Amino acid sequence: MENSTALRDRLLDEIMDIPVIDVHSHVPAAEPCAERLRDILGYHYFTELAHSAGLDKAVLDDSVPDEQMIPQLLDGMKAIRNTVQHSWLTELASELFDFDKGVVTSDNWQELDRAVQSAAGQQGRAREVLEASSIERVFLTNSFDEDLSRVDTDMFVPSLRADNLVFELEDPEVRGKLEEVSDTEIKDSNSLKAALHTVFEYFITRGAKSAAISLPPHCETVVVEDAELERVVDKVLSGQELDAAESQKLQSGVFFMLAELCGEFEVPMQVMYGARRDAYEHGVPKGTDICQAGDSLTGLLPLLNSFPGVTFCLSVLNEGLNQELVNYGWIFHNVVISGHWWYLNVPVYIEQDLTARIQAVPGTKLIGYYSDMYKLEFGLPKFNMYRRSLAKVLAEEFVGRGLGDEEQAVSLARAMLRGNAQRIFGV
Amino acid sequence: MENSTALRDRLLDEIMDIPVIDVHSHVPAAEPCAERLRDILGYHYFTELAHSAGLDKAVLDDSVPDEQMIPQLLDGMKAIRNTVQHSWLTELASELFDFDKGVVTSDNWQELDRAVQSAAGQQGRAREVLEASSIERVFLTNSFDEDLSRVDTDMFVPSLRADNLVFELEDPEVRGKLEEVSDTEIKDSNSLKAALHTVFEYFITRGAKSAAISLPPHCETVVVEDAELERVVDKVLSGQELDAAESQKLQSGVFFMLAELCGEFEVPMQVMYGARRDAYEHGVPKGTDICQAGDSLTGLLPLLNSFPGVTFCLSVLNEGLNQELVNYGWIFHNVVISGHWWYLNVPVYIEQDLTARIQAVPGTKLIGYYSDMYKLEFGLPKFNMYRRSLAKVLAEEFVGRGLGDEEQAVSLARAMLRGNAQRIFGV
Amino acid sequence: MENSTALRDRLLDEIMDIPVIDVHSHVPAAEPCAERLRDILGYHYFTELAHSAGLDKAVLDDSVPDEQMIPQLLDGMKAIRNTVQHSWLTELASELFDFDKGVVTSDNWQELDRAVQSAAGQQGRAREVLEASSIERVFLTNSFDEDLSRVDTDMFVPSLRADNLVFELEDPEVRGKLEEVSDTEIKDSNSLKAALHTVFEYFITRGAKSAAISLPPHCETVVVEDAELERVVDKVLSGQELDAAESQKLQSGVFFMLAELCGEFEVPMQVMYGARRDAYEHGVPKGTDICQAGDSLTGLLPLLNSFPGVTFCLSVLNEGLNQELVNYGWIFHNVVISGHWWYLNVPVYIEQDLTARIQAVPGTKLIGYYSDMYKLEFGLPKFNMYRRSLAKVLAEEFVGRGLGDEEQAVSLARAMLRGNAQRIFGV
Repeated sequence: MENSTALRDRLLDEIMDIPVIDVHSHVPAAEPCAERLRDILGYHYFTELAHSAGLDKAVLDDSVPDEQMIPQLLDGMKAIRNTVQHSWLTELASELFDFDKGVVTSDNWQELDRAVQSAAGQQGRAREVLEASSIERVFLTNSFDEDLSRVDTDMFVPSLRADNLVFELEDPEVRGKLEEVSDTEIKDSNSLKAALHTVFEYFITRGAKSAAISLPPHCETVVVEDAELERVVDKVLSGQELDAAESQKLQSGVFFMLAELCGEFEVPMQVMYGARRDAYEHGVPKGTDICQAGDSLTGLLPLLNSFPGVTFCLSVLNEGLNQELVNYGWIFHNVVISGHWWYLNVPVYIEQDLTARIQAVPGTKLIGYYSDMYKLEFGLPKFNMYRRSLAKVLAEEFVGRGLGDEEQAVSLARAMLRGNAQRIFGV
Repeated sequence: MENSTALRDRLLDEIMDIPVIDVHSHVPAAEPCAERLRDILGYHYFTELAHSAGLDKAVLDDSVPDEQMIPQLLDGMKAIRNTVQHSWLTELASELFDFDKGVVTSDNWQELDRAVQSAAGQQGRAREVLEASSIERVFLTNSFDEDLSRVDTDMFVPSLRADNLVFELEDPEVRGKLEEVSDTEIKDSNSLKAALHTVFEYFITRGAKSAAISLPPHCETVVVEDAELERVVDKVLSGQELDAAESQKLQSGVFFMLAELCGEFEVPMQVMYGARRDAYEHGVPKGTDICQAGDSLTGLLPLLNSFPGVTFCLSVLNEGLNQELVNYGWIFHNVVISGHWWYLNVPVYIEQDLTARIQAVPGTKLIGYYSDMYKLEFGLPKFNMYRRSLAKVLAEEFVGRGLGDEEQAVSLARAMLRGNAQRIFGV
Repeated sequence: MENSTALRDRLLDEIMDIPVIDVHSHVPAAEPCAERLRDILGYHYFTELAHSAGLDKAVLDDSVPDEQMIPQLLDGMKAIRNTVQHSWLTELASELFDFDKGVVTSDNWQELDRAVQSAAGQQGRAREVLEASSIERVFLTNSFDEDLSRVDTDMFVPSLRADNLVFELEDPEVRGKLEEVSDTEIKDSNSLKAALHTVFEYFITRGAKSAAISLPPHCETVVVEDAELERVVDKVLSGQELDAAESQKLQSGVFFMLAELCGEFEVPMQVMYGARRDAYEHGVPKGTDICQAGDSLTGLLPLLNSFPGVTFCLSVLNEGLNQELVNYGWIFHNVVISGHWWYLNVPVYIEQDLTARIQAVPGTKLIGYYSDMYKLEFGLPKFNMYRRSLAKVLAEEFVGRGLGDEEQAVSLARAMLRGNAQRIFGV
């Protein structure tokens, strides 16, 4: 066998040039780039890891000025220099801001801060960052009541975040907003569906290419008969409290309506499975959610079986679900496997799972990676981390196994980073 | 350390020559070989993956002639060329049918089809295929009412498939067949046991060397008192419906009877744990079952503890059970770890688990691999896939770790592919 | 990339010289060394594996003389020569007893036995073994009623084993002992707490640096209101049986008292999660417990959230919990990840998990390894096994990934083997 390091390096060169479609991010379209260093250092990966390693979270409060907050955070981040998350900071500083001091520290941060602020003021900075990152389009995550009229759809692709529609419709405020943006009085399940339809229409017209939802562990979808759904909707609209079984029916009912709308408007539904919210009471903002072991995707079977015509792009948060998801991508024609989410976005987990996907799932059904980023600057180090893992796995576990040659490896990488997303989402 | 690639290649050379005992397959003894290409392409791995990637399953219907079905299936299989399953086709075509066109396509399939048909007509083809595959004996999976009188026991070893006895005895048709083949009227638990005894006797006389059963996820065995079992058997025989707890008792009761018979006839019970049947409603035939995450083997403890004298050869379907199974193989004297089943039959899962087994379980208690094949032609690429993984793991994780030298590695491989099966099953 | 084997070897050289703090063992302070070979061969890893491979456990009975027991056990251990556990024996025989025959067999054991007996008689043998093993301090596991007055705290660090306090307080005998050692009459929850406080005081005064508890699978901690705890304590003190919910409250109540005492005395609590005791009815002594798949750490959330000021050093027994634990170490500021316990103490599991820990958890929150040994002689081969894995992972997955250079790798190793334990436990 050829030296797999040389092969890996050649593959990485090719992979670096593929302009990727990033199918999931939290980038705000109006302010996609960091305005100052604090916008970068405030990323929850840094704050939660530094806090976990002992940093007082009071330091992170908005009221603490940069001059105090940043050096203390960076000192706290000494404890996480071993992590891959920390390497994102070093890499983006060097690659996007020509920061040549290596590790960002409490002694040298001002130089980087100036570079961030200076770059932020430049015309076309967002496009420049994307180009430096080999990213072509970035999906957004948009609340149903968000104004999409000013989204730059050359760079961005809206996506309807459905979490509160499914899980918070018992909240009169959420229903009120839905009535308002859809200009529809919700008085039964039909008008509820009509309101959702209007939201979908609005999103699709503004270039949205998917709905997206994040589900808690042990989420059990159920097929709800029309009459029963009607009863539950009536009950909630009349202001009564639902019991647990009724809540589940309402949630599944709405979830299924959204899936039906995905079918009608021919867009996939992106499902991120398994985040348990607010589990850690003492965490920093966005640093309180966890994954949960011991879970199964079987709660999704009613949904997946009910909508054979809708494509579900699934991501999971717990390693224990990886092989089950490979199984689903392997036999369910409407399941696409997507990315490596959050707590699984670590090379060791990525590479093990990536190998399985490449060895056992149709190559047309794999969306390699998404950034999940909050600011565009993180696309570069996150995708580069993935690109290195992809090159390694393709060299060792694809070409090295005789599953294909170098050209086929590049072609598979292109499908996973770009072509599949283009086809599946129609971008 | 020596170059582990060279060592791996030397080990692979040795391993390729070990004539294996294949302890689990679905080969039909009367028609063990493919008669035409369609028999090969119809393997559910190909059809389910092609369907998952977008192939219309109507194409697979028996009524569609080869000239239409095969090119469409092969075109559909373009999407799965990255997979290890697809590599099985390429390898068997080349190695068993001298097909020299590389990948089988909609343009070149006829040549391969002719080769398959021509080979099928040759005297001694089955033995020839086995020899080309370094396989000595192949276990079958036989229904309790199967006629074993014409099984060629030089090549094949019958195995009593117990699934319907355990899980479908509430069905009068199954009981009727059991009464018929055993020539025993089932009127209570004693005569039920007698009927099963007769079946066992028949099987053992015809060369059977094991009973085999496939269990669903979360299968809970229970110790049932004689009187209680009697009551449940009476109830089902009198035509009444059992409730869930009673069904569990009946199933465990029969399962324990079979385990007792395994003890009496001194054959192991092969237990395949964790297939959830018919979960995917839109799948192709044999492409609707899934594994399930979040499960545990603890439901087997009553069984394993009740029969210390019976050897249980365990396989699992979900990666989350692999380490638990290693634990069982490590301390339970009556548990043997067997093969890499179905959705875990992928190099990445095999090698991780194989490393654990070799590092932590007595080498005498490992049955390396079985084919699970439906036609003999799949033995070659499946075992070869395993042999490569075994050589790699032995080179890197056994010799490379200093756990043994090259000779001990070969000796361990021989035990895992042949010697252990010979000793454990008495073949 | 540099040849990672050379780098690994250099790292290993450095790592071998780091004097480690071993934060968990079962070494008896009064007899820390093996007196004869049987003390070594009696380690449950050897006996359970040999029994699993077919050895009659009657051979292991104390009444069987060495001349019969040892050759039979060693013959039985032929079947486990592939395992890493067996390699511990070979390595310690060679490194600690100058045994130059390689594998210990039924033919050559007497020579080793003589060497063990001769070494046992030497002054300062324990210190010598520790020095040969690059181990500086060894934590003990001490029952609450143990006399610590003669523990050599230069070598050993007592640790309060809390299992029976939490799980067996319904047993009058346990309560009686607690009253005796604390000289406190337990008549309500306050006096119970006072008794525990006295135990803590005694332990801390004698150099104890942690409490330690082992929890069963699916252990659910609960926050219990004072009045409710009082009621349950009253009930048990009055001799009444508790129902399951009450037992859980009593256990959690005591567990929380102990956590509070850890806070007061500023020592961490070591939590070993997930051992199911006495699951295998036919096992050898200490060879009957198992891990359980399908579990989650979420049952610990009430505890972890209730004591933000107490450090919990967590270990798990099932691979399915590894990534969840990484998640906890990543965001919970009071969770430290500790070692690779028992059934996960196998290179393949260690290296996968170690890579994740190094890539995603603050380096200050990792306690690399502990021996869990019963005699000091096992520290050498167990730590050496870990050191090799650590060197490999640091070379390939840390330096090789560009997460740090060689110096930083050594520095991280030093923290994981020594510095973190020193800081966290205050030794």
